Amino acid sequence: MRPAARSFLLGELFGLLGGELRGDATLRLSQVAPLESAGPDEITYFAAEAYRREFEATRAGAVVVRPADARSGINCICTANPHLYFIRVLELFHPEPAPAGGVHPLAWVHPQAEVAASAEIAAFVSVEQGARIGERARLGPGCRIGRHAQVGDDCRLHANVTVYDYCIVGKRAVLNAGCVIGSDGFGGALHDGRWVKMPHVGRVVLGDDVEVGANTTIDRGALADTVLGDGVKLDNLIQIGHNVHIGAHTSVAACAGIAGSARIGANCIIGGSADISGHLHIADGVRISPSTMISRSIETPGRYTGIFPWTDHAAWLRIAAALRRLGKSPATGRERARGRRNRARQNDDDEHQ
Amino acid sequence: MRPAARSFLLGELFGLLGGELRGDATLRLSQVAPLESAGPDEITYFAAEAYRREFEATRAGAVVVRPADARSGINCICTANPHLYFIRVLELFHPEPAPAGGVHPLAWVHPQAEVAASAEIAAFVSVEQGARIGERARLGPGCRIGRHAQVGDDCRLHANVTVYDYCIVGKRAVLNAGCVIGSDGFGGALHDGRWVKMPHVGRVVLGDDVEVGANTTIDRGALADTVLGDGVKLDNLIQIGHNVHIGAHTSVAACAGIAGSARIGANCIIGGSADISGHLHIADGVRISPSTMISRSIETPGRYTGIFPWTDHAAWLRIAAALRRLGKSPATGRERARGRRNRARQNDDDEHQ
Amino acid sequence: MRPAARSFLLGELFGLLGGELRGDATLRLSQVAPLESAGPDEITYFAAEAYRREFEATRAGAVVVRPADARSGINCICTANPHLYFIRVLELFHPEPAPAGGVHPLAWVHPQAEVAASAEIAAFVSVEQGARIGERARLGPGCRIGRHAQVGDDCRLHANVTVYDYCIVGKRAVLNAGCVIGSDGFGGALHDGRWVKMPHVGRVVLGDDVEVGANTTIDRGALADTVLGDGVKLDNLIQIGHNVHIGAHTSVAACAGIAGSARIGANCIIGGSADISGHLHIADGVRISPSTMISRSIETPGRYTGIFPWTDHAAWLRIAAALRRLGKSPATGRERARGRRNRARQNDDDEHQ
Repeated sequence: MRPAARSFLLGELFGLLGGELRGDATLRLSQVAPLESAGPDEITYFAAEAYRREFEATRAGAVVVRPADARSGINCICTANPHLYFIRVLELFHPEPAPAGGVHPLAWVHPQAEVAASAEIAAFVSVEQGARIGERARLGPGCRIGRHAQVGDDCRLHANVTVYDYCIVGKRAVLNAGCVIGSDGFGGALHDGRWVKMPHVGRVVLGDDVEVGANTTIDRGALADTVLGDGVKLDNLIQIGHNVHIGAHTSVAACAGIAGSARIGANCIIGGSADISGHLHIADGVRISPSTMISRSIETPGRYTGIFPWTDHAAWLRIAAALRRLGKSPATGRERARGRRNRARQNDDDEHQ
Repeated sequence: MRPAARSFLLGELFGLLGGELRGDATLRLSQVAPLESAGPDEITYFAAEAYRREFEATRAGAVVVRPADARSGINCICTANPHLYFIRVLELFHPEPAPAGGVHPLAWVHPQAEVAASAEIAAFVSVEQGARIGERARLGPGCRIGRHAQVGDDCRLHANVTVYDYCIVGKRAVLNAGCVIGSDGFGGALHDGRWVKMPHVGRVVLGDDVEVGANTTIDRGALADTVLGDGVKLDNLIQIGHNVHIGAHTSVAACAGIAGSARIGANCIIGGSADISGHLHIADGVRISPSTMISRSIETPGRYTGIFPWTDHAAWLRIAAALRRLGKSPATGRERARGRRNRARQNDDDEHQ
Repeated sequence: MRPAARSFLLGELFGLLGGELRGDATLRLSQVAPLESAGPDEITYFAAEAYRREFEATRAGAVVVRPADARSGINCICTANPHLYFIRVLELFHPEPAPAGGVHPLAWVHPQAEVAASAEIAAFVSVEQGARIGERARLGPGCRIGRHAQVGDDCRLHANVTVYDYCIVGKRAVLNAGCVIGSDGFGGALHDGRWVKMPHVGRVVLGDDVEVGANTTIDRGALADTVLGDGVKLDNLIQIGHNVHIGAHTSVAACAGIAGSARIGANCIIGGSADISGHLHIADGVRISPSTMISRSIETPGRYTGIFPWTDHAAWLRIAAALRRLGKSPATGRERARGRRNRARQNDDDEHQ
């Protein structure tokens, strides 16, 4: 754990953030902690039923809870949304340092780039010709801002982030280390058995309050832009193909891939390692389960799933063999016998994969 | 969209690129655009039947089409391969800037490295001892060229690309931001329950005209080289294991993984998020569907698939339960009853995953 | 292949590394090589039955083998673990250069950071306030060490590695290019249809002898730390979510994803592209097959699998149609007929995915 910036009295938190205090306002709290390990000078929260056992056993000095969950013998702050309230608590114990402002002497800013005076540009950052960096933006070491790219006010770019030429990052974005905004889209024309590269002249345009995880990649559009709406949240190691549109406040978990020209609605939740094929449309409010491959458009909100059920390996061998039988076309008796022999061999092979 | 370098008369494009002009040669075109949004001073193309409706409704000033698709009332350039022709149009409207030549004062080049005078080395690039950078190569900011590594003529390395020691990049490569060429291969010897690292002394050798997507990783070989043939195209976030060979002009879509020592043929097309196990052989001309896991060698060209069919979550629960039944070994009546109870619980659990 | 540092007599290797020599101690060996391509002045090893054919045909000057595999007509060194022995051979032919020590004039080290005098800091590295770099640690160009972060003795960080504020890297770690240690964890509270970011104040704590592959990402914990035990080995492009714990000597192959708060035991082997859901527990000694999605805790050591069996595309269409039938709820005759028509259309659609 990183050290807290300072300690707070429970009553002080209540005074700053509201809610309903049931307990000792004079209790001094020195740190935040999880339910299961919080000690008597620490504050935690209880918001999901799955953690009730930990809540009942907690040794925390104070807990942020829903009113119905307050109980005697423990200091509580009651509020309708304990998770949200606790985020405010976290921001008090662990405030983000304000941007220092100024360009590090070992950064490089093109004379025809515009960097707000309140922006903080770390060592080894490069800002190319025509780029614009907004007020209070913080660029970590090694960030690369391409020609005519824009980074909005109050953005936080961690280390080694790349924004290609002409791409636009809205206000208050958080871009984690190593993510790439505006890489070449994939694809070209086949000509005599060779691929001829398609120049991509679209941009990536990120709305406000977008977050991008570490080493996630977002390709720029071919002839038009790749567009992410306000409040879109992308986890780590996600691929967003060229010309994709993602609606506002949609969340995508790690390792997912969204292929080119897909249009994803607003307020969707896309699970980790899910894949969405290109050129299709997903309605607002759709939830895709993890590890699911979506190959056609979805026009109805709801939850969609396609996960192979895992099991012990021996049972899986039986399932796989049964599935392969489903794939056989109607066959003569002799072919069936040959098939049985082949399947036996296949299952042996599977042991070695 | 980024601004075009200049405008063209339709007749001028025809004069430079050929084809058959059906329409007004004096029309001035200021930009490229997609079929569905192109305006009267923009040029677009129509090459895939899936876009016929957009073609019929287009407001574009001019369209590049196959001869059979030309129609009256719209300015057309006819050609056998409209996609390829349009790539040439794109290169006219949006030419790549020529490399400026020279080493940025904030780059670092080892005195015993060789950098062609026509190469362009951006800020914060490091080029180590014995490395060689070819004519007109462009290295974006933050690129890392290891000891004795080679980057061929006319390569384009975007920002923060890493080429490990001794690796070789052929001519005209395009390496997108954050990709890694030559990382340690994975694996070692187990000794007393611990992994002992296997030093990897092979290289990565990329042929000519190779493209590598953003944040893609290519491991170097253990005792021999990892080799990608001419014209291989890799999308973003792909993993290529140690000792892999990929034949010329094979294309691999995003998030795919090719495990160590696999040998992939030429002119294959490997879908996004597909996985190929190690130590196997894929023939030339094989097409692997997205999200498919290939566990044995494929000696016959064709298309191969293994995708769990997605559906609404309730239907998936039924499918998953049926699959699990296929995995049960023959059981007594009492075991079957217990199995039914367990399955009921499992299905409940699935709701929470 | 990179050139060897020097040549060795076979007897000299035997003298340095032990084992049992059967053959000509005066043979001069100039390089290491794989079984199938080794020549008469090269040494190789034979450890896995799958390579017996290559062993029998090898032209290698010398082979490291198990005693039972030694055969006349070929120079052998016999040892119980040929792979481990050969790793020592590799370290002799290809020793890692010792760290040069010192800070490159184009690196940036905060005056309140501590860098051991024996550590080697390459160009364009940034080391922030309060960070500590151990003895003989080597930081490649472009590495980013955050505030109060620690890098242990004898670590090797390749190029462009990011270690976020407060994170801890144990001794002898190998971090490949572009990996990210300590990025923001994913998730927040929903409030009025928008995601409110959860500040993450935990750290990443890596034990000793940990390896991390290229572009792999490890999120820091929310309220507690993300912890990887001693000897954990991660391949490339892996995602480790916030608060995950991984036990000692567990190995994870490329492209795998481990979701937040999962607890993985020691000595597990997790296959490539496998996914593990959040908040579950995996016992010690569990083996997860590649491309398998684990959605519930596993308390029993063993091998677990869930891979859709791939096949030619036509057979897959039949399998997929049969699976979809399993998902139908009991239906009237009219609904069944409509279902058949819909399925026929779906299968057509699949052709285009």
